[in-house]
Amino acid sequence: MELVRTMPYLSWPVARIATPSIVNRARFWQHAADESTKCECVMTIESVDFFYLSMPVVTDAGDGSQDALVVRVVADGIEGWGECEASPLVSIAAYVAPMSHGACKPVRDVVLGQKIDDASDITRMSAAVELECMDLLQAAHTFSGIEMAFWDLLGRKRGAPVYELLGYKHAHAKLPYASQLFGDTPTETLAGCRAARDTGFRAVKCGWGPFGRGTLAEDRDQLHAAREGLGRDGTLLIDAGQIFREDVDQAAARIAMLEEVGTTWFEEPFLGGAYHAYAALAARSSKVRLAGGEASHNFHMARQLIDCGKVSYVQIDCGRIGGIGAAKRTADYAASRGVTYVNHTFTSHLALCASLQPYAGLKDHVICEYPFAPKSVSWDMTSTHLVPNANGEVSLPSAPGLGITMNPGGMANYLVDIEIAVKGKILYRTPNL
Amino acid sequence: MELVRTMPYLSWPVARIATPSIVNRARFWQHAADESTKCECVMTIESVDFFYLSMPVVTDAGDGSQDALVVRVVADGIEGWGECEASPLVSIAAYVAPMSHGACKPVRDVVLGQKIDDASDITRMSAAVELECMDLLQAAHTFSGIEMAFWDLLGRKRGAPVYELLGYKHAHAKLPYASQLFGDTPTETLAGCRAARDTGFRAVKCGWGPFGRGTLAEDRDQLHAAREGLGRDGTLLIDAGQIFREDVDQAAARIAMLEEVGTTWFEEPFLGGAYHAYAALAARSSKVRLAGGEASHNFHMARQLIDCGKVSYVQIDCGRIGGIGAAKRTADYAASRGVTYVNHTFTSHLALCASLQPYAGLKDHVICEYPFAPKSVSWDMTSTHLVPNANGEVSLPSAPGLGITMNPGGMANYLVDIEIAVKGKILYRTPNL
Repeated sequence: MELVRTMPYLSWPVARIATPSIVNRARFWQHAADESTKCECVMTIESVDFFYLSMPVVTDAGDGSQDALVVRVVADGIEGWGECEASPLVSIAAYVAPMSHGACKPVRDVVLGQKIDDASDITRMSAAVELECMDLLQAAHTFSGIEMAFWDLLGRKRGAPVYELLGYKHAHAKLPYASQLFGDTPTETLAGCRAARDTGFRAVKCGWGPFGRGTLAEDRDQLHAAREGLGRDGTLLIDAGQIFREDVDQAAARIAMLEEVGTTWFEEPFLGGAYHAYAALAARSSKVRLAGGEASHNFHMARQLIDCGKVSYVQIDCGRIGGIGAAKRTADYAASRGVTYVNHTFTSHLALCASLQPYAGLKDHVICEYPFAPKSVSWDMTSTHLVPNANGEVSLPSAPGLGITMNPGGMANYLVDIEIAVKGKILYRTPNL
Repeated sequence: MELVRTMPYLSWPVARIATPSIVNRARFWQHAADESTKCECVMTIESVDFFYLSMPVVTDAGDGSQDALVVRVVADGIEGWGECEASPLVSIAAYVAPMSHGACKPVRDVVLGQKIDDASDITRMSAAVELECMDLLQAAHTFSGIEMAFWDLLGRKRGAPVYELLGYKHAHAKLPYASQLFGDTPTETLAGCRAARDTGFRAVKCGWGPFGRGTLAEDRDQLHAAREGLGRDGTLLIDAGQIFREDVDQAAARIAMLEEVGTTWFEEPFLGGAYHAYAALAARSSKVRLAGGEASHNFHMARQLIDCGKVSYVQIDCGRIGGIGAAKRTADYAASRGVTYVNHTFTSHLALCASLQPYAGLKDHVICEYPFAPKSVSWDMTSTHLVPNANGEVSLPSAPGLGITMNPGGMANYLVDIEIAVKGKILYRTPNL
C-alpha cells in the first residue's frame, strides 16, 4: 500500500489550486477533500477527547502499563477508540497547544471538523499532520492514538474489522510472547519465565533490569535462568533496553552467551537511532538476529532501521509511529525486504488489538508481543481481552473496527484530572467519560 | 569530540555498581556523578524556569519568530539562558509531566539538583535524558534549551565564551544569509530579495510559500525574481519546505531551473526523515547541492542524513537536536565527511548565538542562517544582537557564556501566562522574570 504518493494534492489539477497566502496548508488539504466526490454518508469529526488514566502510584520500573492515554473520537454519533503511547500530559498538550506558526500547529487544528469516509481520508489527515505539525515533535505520538480511533470508527461504520479495511481477507493467529522484565536476580528471572510457561506461553521475552549493567558472568547467569524457566523448546527473546548506547563491543561481547541459550532475537542493544551500531553488530552475529524499531515515530525511521540498521525483526508501536496506516506501510516494506514485522505493545488490549491489525494478514510473521502482567489500569479499561487459546495463540476479534469494547466504569477508577490554561483560557480539562 | 563513548557508566568499575531494583537509571547516573572527584566549586542546578513569549496574534505564516520558549537555569546564583524550538506549551509539559515509567520521565527529574562543573556534566545529563526520557518524544526539544543554558552558565562561571569550552581557540566570522519566505508573487519575492541586498546581505534564502505548489513555469518565475532581486553575485539558497514529501520526480523537475539561477543549495525538498528520497535526488543533481537536517532531534538523525541522504549541507537547530553538545558532535562528523555544517535559526539572537557556537571554529564552514525580519518578540527579548559588519559578516561575541544579555523588560511584554494542573496540583505556573 503506497500511502503517500497518491495524496490528493499531487494529482489535483494544477489550475484549480489557488496559490495560497504564504503557507496555509491545512485549508489546502481541506479544500482537496471537500471537492472530491463523496457520498451522502460522509462523516464529520465532531469531537476528539483524551482520557489520561493512571495507577495511583507510578514507579520507575520500566513497565509501560502503569498509565495510558485513551482517545475517543466521535463522528456522526459513532465512536472510535485509540491509545497514545506514552506521557499522556505531553500528548494532550500537543493536541491543544497554541499554534507557533504555519508548520507548527496543534494536532486539533488538522483533524477537528474534517470529513472521514474511507481510508484515503485517514491517509490525507496523516499527511497533513506531517506538514502542518512538522515542528511539533510530540505530534506523532498524539496523532497515533487519534488515527487508531479513526480506523475503529470507520470499521464500525462499515461493519468490518480494521484488518479488512487494510486489505487483508483473514487475520492469522499469532504466537504471543510473554513480555517481562529481568528479575533482580537469576532466581527471580527463572521464576518469571516458569510462570509464563505454566500459563501456556511458548515464547518469553526478558528485558531491561540488570542486563548489560554488570559483569558478563552475571548476564550469562540471567540468560541461563531465563532459558531454564522457559524450558528447552520455548522461543527466548532478549531485550537490552538500549543499555549499550552505541558501544558495539559491549553488545558483541554478549553474542556468544545469547547463542548458548538459543536466543531468537537480541532487541534494542543500542539507542533507537544509532543505526550504524545496529549494522555493525548485525555483521558480527549470525545465529542471534537483531530486533528494534519501537522508537520509530514515522515510517521512514522504521525503513532506515531495516535498510541501514540491518535488523531482522522490526518492532512497531502503533501508538507512536503515526497509527495503523504508518504501521501497515512498515509491515509491507518489511515483508518486501525479508524482515519480520512484530508489534510493540506493553500496555492495554486496546493497544494490543490495534497493533496486530497492520500485519494480521501476514501469515509468516507469527510472533507478537503480549503484555504478560499489565497493571490493573491497562487491563480494566477494556471489557474485551485477547486471551491465548489452548494452543497458546491469540486471534484478533472479527467484530467491526478494532473489535474492542471499552469499559468506561473501569476507566473511571483511574481517570486523572488535568487542566491546561493559557492566558487564563482553559484549553483542556478532563472530559466526562 | 566523542560525547558518548566516554560516559561514566561505561568505565565505572563493575564491582561498584549495585544491581539496581528494576530500572532506576536516574539514581545510577547521579551516583556516578556524586562519586567522581570534584572540586569544591561544583555547582548544583537549583532552578529551571520557562518563559513562553508570543506575539499577541500568531498567524499561520511559516514564520518561526512569532513565539519563543526561553529557559533560565540558575546554579549557585549564576544564571544561564537558552531557547527551545518550538511549541512552548508542549515543551513545558515535557518538563513537568508525571512520570509514565522508568524510561519515560519528565526532563525535570533528570536535571534538577544535578551537579554541574564542566562539560562532562552536560554530556552526562544529555545521555541520561536519552535513556530516562526515552519514550517522551518531546523531551529532546525541551532539553535542547536547557542544555544551551548549561553551556551559558558554565561559560559565565569560567569567564569563557562557549566556543572555547567546546575546544575552539577562535570564532570565525560567518556569512549570514537573509532567511525569508517566497512572496505570494514574483514581484514580492523580487522586492524581498532586493531589500535584503540593500541592507547589506550577500546571501539570501527564499523558501516555502507557493514554491512547489503551482506549475513549473510559476516556480521558474519565482526563482528568476529572487535572483534578480539579489543580484548576480549573491549566494542564492532555495528552501522547498518539504513540499514534495517523497516525490523525487517532482523535485527533480525543478533542478534545471534551480541551476539556471545559480542556486547554491536546494533545501528540504522532502519530509525530514525521507533520506532515501534525498539520496535519489542527490544522484540526479550535480551543480545544485542538497541541504537539510533541521528536523534532527538527535545526532544520529543528522548522521543518517549525511551518510544515507547524501546532503552536502547539514542544517542543525540547537533548539531541537539536544543542544550545543549534540550540534558540536554533528559539526565534527560533517567536517569529517566533507559536508558543510550550517545553523538553522529562525527565531531570536539568543538562539542565533547558541547555534553558531558548534561550528564557530570551522573556518571553511562559512554560511550561517540569519533571521532577516523577525517578529518583535524575537528581537526584543535580548539586549545583545549580532549585527552584520560592513563586510556583511557576523561574529560571535567573545563575552563569557553565550555572550548574550537578556532583556527582561522586553520579554515581559510578550509573556504568556500558563497553568498546568494534574490531580488538582499545579505542576507549572508562569514564573516571575
